[in-house]
Amino acid sequence: MRILVLGGDGYLGWPSALHLSAGGHDVGIADNYVRRSYDLELGVESLVPIASPTDRVRAWRDLTLRELAVYRGDLTDAAFTHHMISDFRPDAIVHFAEQRSAPYSMIDQRHAVYTQTNNVVGNLNVLYAIAEANPDIHLVKLGTMGEYGTPNIDIEEGWIDITHKGRTDRVLYPKRPGSFYHLSKVHDSHNIEFACRIWGLRATDLNQGIVYGQETDETTLDDRLATRFDYDAVFGTVLNRMAIQAVLGEPLTVYGHGGQIRGILNIVDTVECIRIACENPADRGEFRVFNQFTESMSVAEIASTVAKVYPGKTKTVLIDNPRVESEDHYYRAAHTGLLELGLVPHLLSETLLSSMFGIIDRYRDRVNLEALLPAVKWRETSAQAASPR
Amino acid sequence: MRILVLGGDGYLGWPSALHLSAGGHDVGIADNYVRRSYDLELGVESLVPIASPTDRVRAWRDLTLRELAVYRGDLTDAAFTHHMISDFRPDAIVHFAEQRSAPYSMIDQRHAVYTQTNNVVGNLNVLYAIAEANPDIHLVKLGTMGEYGTPNIDIEEGWIDITHKGRTDRVLYPKRPGSFYHLSKVHDSHNIEFACRIWGLRATDLNQGIVYGQETDETTLDDRLATRFDYDAVFGTVLNRMAIQAVLGEPLTVYGHGGQIRGILNIVDTVECIRIACENPADRGEFRVFNQFTESMSVAEIASTVAKVYPGKTKTVLIDNPRVESEDHYYRAAHTGLLELGLVPHLLSETLLSSMFGIIDRYRDRVNLEALLPAVKWRETSAQAASPR
Repeated sequence: MRILVLGGDGYLGWPSALHLSAGGHDVGIADNYVRRSYDLELGVESLVPIASPTDRVRAWRDLTLRELAVYRGDLTDAAFTHHMISDFRPDAIVHFAEQRSAPYSMIDQRHAVYTQTNNVVGNLNVLYAIAEANPDIHLVKLGTMGEYGTPNIDIEEGWIDITHKGRTDRVLYPKRPGSFYHLSKVHDSHNIEFACRIWGLRATDLNQGIVYGQETDETTLDDRLATRFDYDAVFGTVLNRMAIQAVLGEPLTVYGHGGQIRGILNIVDTVECIRIACENPADRGEFRVFNQFTESMSVAEIASTVAKVYPGKTKTVLIDNPRVESEDHYYRAAHTGLLELGLVPHLLSETLLSSMFGIIDRYRDRVNLEALLPAVKWRETSAQAASPR
Repeated sequence: MRILVLGGDGYLGWPSALHLSAGGHDVGIADNYVRRSYDLELGVESLVPIASPTDRVRAWRDLTLRELAVYRGDLTDAAFTHHMISDFRPDAIVHFAEQRSAPYSMIDQRHAVYTQTNNVVGNLNVLYAIAEANPDIHLVKLGTMGEYGTPNIDIEEGWIDITHKGRTDRVLYPKRPGSFYHLSKVHDSHNIEFACRIWGLRATDLNQGIVYGQETDETTLDDRLATRFDYDAVFGTVLNRMAIQAVLGEPLTVYGHGGQIRGILNIVDTVECIRIACENPADRGEFRVFNQFTESMSVAEIASTVAKVYPGKTKTVLIDNPRVESEDHYYRAAHTGLLELGLVPHLLSETLLSSMFGIIDRYRDRVNLEALLPAVKWRETSAQAASPR
């Protein structure tokens, strides 16, 4: 298949592109490289050094003789998006190209507006370009489990059958997201479902859990193929950050009392899920939703797992939760769609965690310790925090 | 109370501002006047001539000795929005200031992106400005009944109690909107609910039905106080457009077979609902939703009512439905919240409709007949329609 990976320079976009290329697909990647510039803005960088966009693409070609087509541009530029899709003629488009940090979206008004505009407009332009270039293209869109919030009923995969006052309907699962970032993904999902309805597009919305790990079969072939590994409080996800805190002898920071439960998955399962979704397209007009995670754990359990496996001493600190979220809630979420299509999960294990410690130790000197603690708070805007009251 | 009406120069914003002012409130109005420029873009204008922004405000002052504070600017300009709210110090903000036409949002990619950006960003800026200036301000936000779509279960007011696999939760009512415009309102609602949750804002979301009529107690005091009356296929709403078609001897255009059911309300009830919502604020942290309509009718019933009441001959034509919507569906929507707060509805009656015919007849020479027929189609983008295939 011909597969275009939007956001193909990012943490998951890059290893997904390599995995699809290794699997025999003709792959193009598109990026505006803004993820690299968030690093400059925040004064942090990936723990693991990453090669320049040109060097990593060249390294893949040198090692595998497989070419990745590269499109440099911004999805909010409708002409660029339309041209790229007409030019590459993909069978499937994997759309990772969104601002993906909840704390980043909560910094202030400007970052909230940026996140929603960037994500919603980019996605709208992709929908229009597909409709106008070739409505048969399968859109595989990255969403997040965080869109659902923590309802007191079972979380289903995107749709739910409701019986109400004796009547029944199948409706989009009602969501209650926890940040302006998570909200942007909910907006996207509604826009995509509508596009499937009116234009007969085919789409798979992947509500992904929190990804951990940094290595895949493809990225470990060469240092130049490494993907980024974020540990800071803005872009670092919980398990990666705690593994790094353990190696550095820093306390594992648990927000609140840590009872909040999250779906998680290994990066090697992420790239497999993407391949499976692409190779098993949704039907024309179908808005298909998969919950893309393999197991769920509370934040406190994640911390205790890291502490148990790490060979040295660790300590855990409970810090004020910067987010507004329930820390004591029911959580049961379906995730059978991808398993039925053949996903074989790699569950969190001691071996796997141990391999992360080695990577971290290798690059421990690159860490900016100040970046580990959360500075963005949900309950007050940065303007409120800055002004005396 | 001090009440700021955003979009205070528009079809409903203007008469709402007058009604609140007449009711003894201190009223400010804000507008970027873009609604007037849509007329230039589309080559149509209000059937009833409307005074310039300056003249209508001056006329109100001359007639009533009541002053309306005027803010000229755009809500997507965060600095303007923040300054205005800090300067006026409102107790309540009534937010009408959004692009409000479904067909306009469906013209092409550019209009879809404009609609969602304008509406979502403007609303986000209002939320931030309230949070930072005074979280006690009550936001009264205009949404639409079209957000719900036509589910096979009863439509409740914003929230629904769901029992699923033996467990129960109260969740946001799942919506399935019918255009990129309607989607923008769904996005707004999600953003507002989140702002109530994290910042403790108080908000009332008014899911309004289709408004008909052009006169209120206040606008009829003087021709210079008239509000706009749209009849074109882009901004004209169904009952107003059919009344105009009747007077002009043009066929009443029913989309599809006309079985689609809509909630409707008289413009005099709209301005009353706004007053009631302002004078009975939501609690801090509450996201309150009212379905703002007084009765529901199918499009075919609306056509037959107009035909029955109009003293001359009329004919009705069924035309291809330009929209993607169900024309044969269950429809039962709750609308008790505003009634419980004291709304006394003015239901569609022969007298009321007759009074509309008089207004239309007075300005019949201003009609551009070409503008009556729908040119925007949901199923294909304008780029697809323009290119041979």
